[in-house]
Amino acid sequence: MAENKILIEGSGKHCHVSQSTLYALFGDGFEMEVKKELSQPGQFATPHKITVVGPKRSTDVTILGPCRNADQIELSLTDATAIGLKPPIRESGDLAGSPGCKLIGPKGEIEIKEGVIIAKRHIHFTVEDAAALGIKDKQTVSVKVDGDRALVFGEVVARVNPEYATSMHLDYDEYNGAALSASNTYGEIVL
Amino acid sequence: MAENKILIEGSGKHCHVSQSTLYALFGDGFEMEVKKELSQPGQFATPHKITVVGPKRSTDVTILGPCRNADQIELSLTDATAIGLKPPIRESGDLAGSPGCKLIGPKGEIEIKEGVIIAKRHIHFTVEDAAALGIKDKQTVSVKVDGDRALVFGEVVARVNPEYATSMHLDYDEYNGAALSASNTYGEIVL
Repeated sequence: MAENKILIEGSGKHCHVSQSTLYALFGDGFEMEVKKELSQPGQFATPHKITVVGPKRSTDVTILGPCRNADQIELSLTDATAIGLKPPIRESGDLAGSPGCKLIGPKGEIEIKEGVIIAKRHIHFTVEDAAALGIKDKQTVSVKVDGDRALVFGEVVARVNPEYATSMHLDYDEYNGAALSASNTYGEIVL
Repeated sequence: MAENKILIEGSGKHCHVSQSTLYALFGDGFEMEVKKELSQPGQFATPHKITVVGPKRSTDVTILGPCRNADQIELSLTDATAIGLKPPIRESGDLAGSPGCKLIGPKGEIEIKEGVIIAKRHIHFTVEDAAALGIKDKQTVSVKVDGDRALVFGEVVARVNPEYATSMHLDYDEYNGAALSASNTYGEIVL
């Protein structure tokens, strides 16, 4: 990590599911395949998709593995509006009071009572990178992006964990709203 | 206009068409209907849609009236990526070198050689409002937005014209990336 330069990655709509939800949607004993390792160690994209049914429409989302304790569906505000949901902007795992929905898989369907969120923008930090910048877990920082759609993102939550790799995560509303791309992938952390 | 407070409006995917394109797609002598007056005086949304065909997929866009000299299709980066186009980020009317596409209407179809753009974010100013802030036509300003996705938009082009009403225009990537909504519609101009 050179100085305050931070790698920015766009996250498409996706979900995390519990073991029991996985079995309910894909059949008992189903095991996820790994399609691609993600930047966060141990996390992976799968080739498996489920259908998220909103009041207006439905949309297919990719499952990220491994299984977690709770089902969590992460949509962009544009995706959520299209299917008729108004989820809150939340950190991962903070699901209380978020909308539920029906989930459909190839072998079954279930209703979840909560779990649909818009991800609050955040940076995963290794302990070393955070320490080098004097940043603490849960601290809010800003990140400056250059280009045709230059902007400064505020309200970026720092998450520091020995299990992480250092990178910033945005959804595609934020990523495209800043015109980030393969040739414009870095931001500058502003404290 | 109270101090530096600016009304922010989201623009969905839309197009402006020439008279000849309108006739080619909807039939000779076709007259647009007015569905809704827009904030800029004389501009209106119509109930008419055309299909924009990209290399990967197509999408329907609303025609805004009245007719203009050149065809101009304004997509968000998310919309454009979905249909397989990579338009540049441009000010309205600056179309040289932008991608073309096929346009399909109920009575015909045409190929345009250029005209698909991602709108560069901008503020329409009345002469009075611009003067009160000391802002000149074509000047670039920044605009600060509060909330869960607080940010500062840079590269906002000021456009000053006696025909305008004062308001800022974003596409929905930018609008949703900042979590703007009916209850979070104002920004603050930062000079």
